[in-house]
Amino acid sequence: MSKEITSRAEDYSKWYNDLVVKSDLADHSAVRGCMVIKPYGYALWENMRDVLDKMFKETGHVNAYFPLFVPKSLFEAEETNAEGFAKECAVVTHYRLKGDPNNKGKLIVDPEAKLEEELVVRPTSEAIIWNTYKGWIQSYRDLPILINQWANVVRWEMRTRLFLRTAEFLWQEGHTAHATRQEAVAETTKMLDVYADFVENWMAVPVIKGVKTPNERFAGAEDTYCIEALMQDGKALQAGTSHFLGQNFAKAFDVKFSDKENKLDYVWATSWGVSTRLIGALIMAHSDDEGLILPPKIAPLQVVIVPIYKGDEQKAQIDAKVKGEIVPALKAAGVSVKYDDNDNARPGWKFAEYEKKGVPVRIAIGARDLENNVAEVARRDTKEKNSYSLDGLPAKIVALLDEIQQNIYNKALNFRNEHITEVNNWDEFVKTLDEKTGFVAAHWDGTGETEEKIKELTKATIRCIPLNNKQEEGACVLTGKPSTQRVLFARAY
Amino acid sequence: MSKEITSRAEDYSKWYNDLVVKSDLADHSAVRGCMVIKPYGYALWENMRDVLDKMFKETGHVNAYFPLFVPKSLFEAEETNAEGFAKECAVVTHYRLKGDPNNKGKLIVDPEAKLEEELVVRPTSEAIIWNTYKGWIQSYRDLPILINQWANVVRWEMRTRLFLRTAEFLWQEGHTAHATRQEAVAETTKMLDVYADFVENWMAVPVIKGVKTPNERFAGAEDTYCIEALMQDGKALQAGTSHFLGQNFAKAFDVKFSDKENKLDYVWATSWGVSTRLIGALIMAHSDDEGLILPPKIAPLQVVIVPIYKGDEQKAQIDAKVKGEIVPALKAAGVSVKYDDNDNARPGWKFAEYEKKGVPVRIAIGARDLENNVAEVARRDTKEKNSYSLDGLPAKIVALLDEIQQNIYNKALNFRNEHITEVNNWDEFVKTLDEKTGFVAAHWDGTGETEEKIKELTKATIRCIPLNNKQEEGACVLTGKPSTQRVLFARAY
Repeated sequence: MSKEITSRAEDYSKWYNDLVVKSDLADHSAVRGCMVIKPYGYALWENMRDVLDKMFKETGHVNAYFPLFVPKSLFEAEETNAEGFAKECAVVTHYRLKGDPNNKGKLIVDPEAKLEEELVVRPTSEAIIWNTYKGWIQSYRDLPILINQWANVVRWEMRTRLFLRTAEFLWQEGHTAHATRQEAVAETTKMLDVYADFVENWMAVPVIKGVKTPNERFAGAEDTYCIEALMQDGKALQAGTSHFLGQNFAKAFDVKFSDKENKLDYVWATSWGVSTRLIGALIMAHSDDEGLILPPKIAPLQVVIVPIYKGDEQKAQIDAKVKGEIVPALKAAGVSVKYDDNDNARPGWKFAEYEKKGVPVRIAIGARDLENNVAEVARRDTKEKNSYSLDGLPAKIVALLDEIQQNIYNKALNFRNEHITEVNNWDEFVKTLDEKTGFVAAHWDGTGETEEKIKELTKATIRCIPLNNKQEEGACVLTGKPSTQRVLFARAY
Repeated sequence: MSKEITSRAEDYSKWYNDLVVKSDLADHSAVRGCMVIKPYGYALWENMRDVLDKMFKETGHVNAYFPLFVPKSLFEAEETNAEGFAKECAVVTHYRLKGDPNNKGKLIVDPEAKLEEELVVRPTSEAIIWNTYKGWIQSYRDLPILINQWANVVRWEMRTRLFLRTAEFLWQEGHTAHATRQEAVAETTKMLDVYADFVENWMAVPVIKGVKTPNERFAGAEDTYCIEALMQDGKALQAGTSHFLGQNFAKAFDVKFSDKENKLDYVWATSWGVSTRLIGALIMAHSDDEGLILPPKIAPLQVVIVPIYKGDEQKAQIDAKVKGEIVPALKAAGVSVKYDDNDNARPGWKFAEYEKKGVPVRIAIGARDLENNVAEVARRDTKEKNSYSLDGLPAKIVALLDEIQQNIYNKALNFRNEHITEVNNWDEFVKTLDEKTGFVAAHWDGTGETEEKIKELTKATIRCIPLNNKQEEGACVLTGKPSTQRVLFARAY
């Protein structure tokens, strides 16, 4: 088998793209910047979505669906100062194609079917949702509204990469409305905790919870909370955001409620989202040069069983044992399992294929194994192989899957922790970013100008001010001005 | 409480719209023809989607996701004769909004951000998917491809109605690729059976399986199979379609495979879909002037419990029993249940509210009921109320939910069966359509011209030629020409 995947050392960026395409997660499409999420990649997304959806519902949220299109004027309501503003987005201007009268077989946009008002394909749904909430909210009894939406959104990105940055992507966006500032802030941090729980305990990717600087905030937010993860190339990736929107959207869309004392006030808001970008984070946090490494708790397939046989008789014996006993027993133990007895491919080819696809556990069973009542069990994460007795196999596999989940997380956590470096002067700052990479914990004078200057000089941004950050006296790494805490800088996706 | 919902007798169409809006299923939006699916409506859709998704997976299908946009040229590939052709669809022509230099606070489409090729928001995905399949299929070993997609689609409808016909709607679209005609035809009818199973056994709406006439076929299909349901106003509604596409799309997008003998041939295709339109069918098949009637198997909420009390002491006693025993026991029996002890609303108001929302079973419990170890159980479908002993309540409620499901189905089935009328001449045909309504089983000479003429004269279309239709000699109801079978005409949504 030829080397399909570029190694990380050779070209990290090409490794990533090769991996996504060759492991059948996704592919480029005929539409610039838009991807096709292939069945294997979509099964992964379904697992992630289902876990998140359950978490949202357990925290009191319900799903709804709002229109794909946002009339242009609603963005004007949102943008308090539209001059100089530009939004890269897909704009629908017409509603009909027709046959080209001058060119048989070709289609043209019918100039007579021009919309009175252009429609924007939603880049996010605050505008259309708050315009809707206006009709739903009169009194404190209508609050809180705790709604989530699973949807596709479009942002006209110039440089795209599969999962990480695509023109169209899938995501969820929570949009909540509250009677008090306190309740809205509590919702914002609650959802940040939900995201951190999901990314750490299901995706096995450790994250740092923090708050963005004003420069890095979502437009329209009073505070943007985020979780930041670290990739194997030492670059950070924002894995999710939760925004406290204050009364900004309520004011833009005139959404008021009467409180218990019959006093009118603007509604308090939050929004929060994660997207298919998380799949990019998952890949870059764990995978290696042979392919994906997927955490068992969200892997589309946890265990694959490959028979090793010569001739029909051996095959029949293995079939009987695997189909009759092992597969049903594993399924009964809650393990997703596939018996790959396709005889068009040899075991070695299958091993490489499932390795590439990141299936956490591979079980190989031959005729002699059957005689000895054992099977060879290989872990994808460490590549260890061990002979397991078939007695009590399901419980052992369940325990092994747990161990793999934990090991993947620990490995990523160690890497992340080794890549948080405290630096105290500019030379160290630049050197650490260039050589060691990762997060750089440095003092900063708190001004947007300094932040901008550091970005210009190093391409590093302030990823976040960690929650419950230690307060300490220090001097800004660039300006030497006084500072009371370190913030986390990094180059980022 | 004022009469919120117009009665069916008064104005069927207004009844439908009132019901959708007042029961919180959906609402109109700021975007012409697009709806907001509210949490209650979306929960219903989630239940429907989850059941269908399971059925698709059990029949060997996997989900994937393809781009929202289809380049204009891909439609040209699909349309063999584009002259005179017009497609009502949303067309993206630009990719940027910017501040209007002449009008502060306003936005304009940036004329410099014009797309080289216009993009159409998918009205259906055959074009983009078959353009993608071209890259996936080389050999018979790559077949079959059995993919489904859950997505939003947009068709620029001029006259829209919530759920029934909206510019944007949610649906699933299956797109399969096969090595033989036989296998593709088998897939087409298999998915028709899946749809019929779902609509009858979960939505409790009886359907007639049939095949469309050439006039009513999906463009590009060799055969369109459908399930047709009957609404309470005697109009038919197409509830799902499954298309045998022959090799048409493979030819349009040049998708060939080499078979086992290494011979090249075009791939055989099917596509099949159902949409949020099914919710419209559900409403119009079962509901009454008081509100929705939902089949227990897909109702967002199956049972609501309302306490009837005076004073805190009674309330505390009822709370203890309901929260401590009844709710957990019902949940353990797999019943979705809500205890509505909100003290801002009176029981009568709650009763009307849950009646409007179609919750299948309402349980009311008062202090005296508690003493007698009973509760009042009311069915939404028949409005019967009975006193139930609290002993063994969960099993009785489970049985009652089954009975309600069956009763709703039987009621719709009887209505449908009473509204299939065999007619043998034109006068009867017109009179039946106008007075009795429903399906009219009549002989037809098999020509598109006659079909078109009948549609012009009566607005009735041939809904389908039922599968396994009885063959009998007869004369066309319009032309008197010979016919070998009756077909089903109706006015339709």
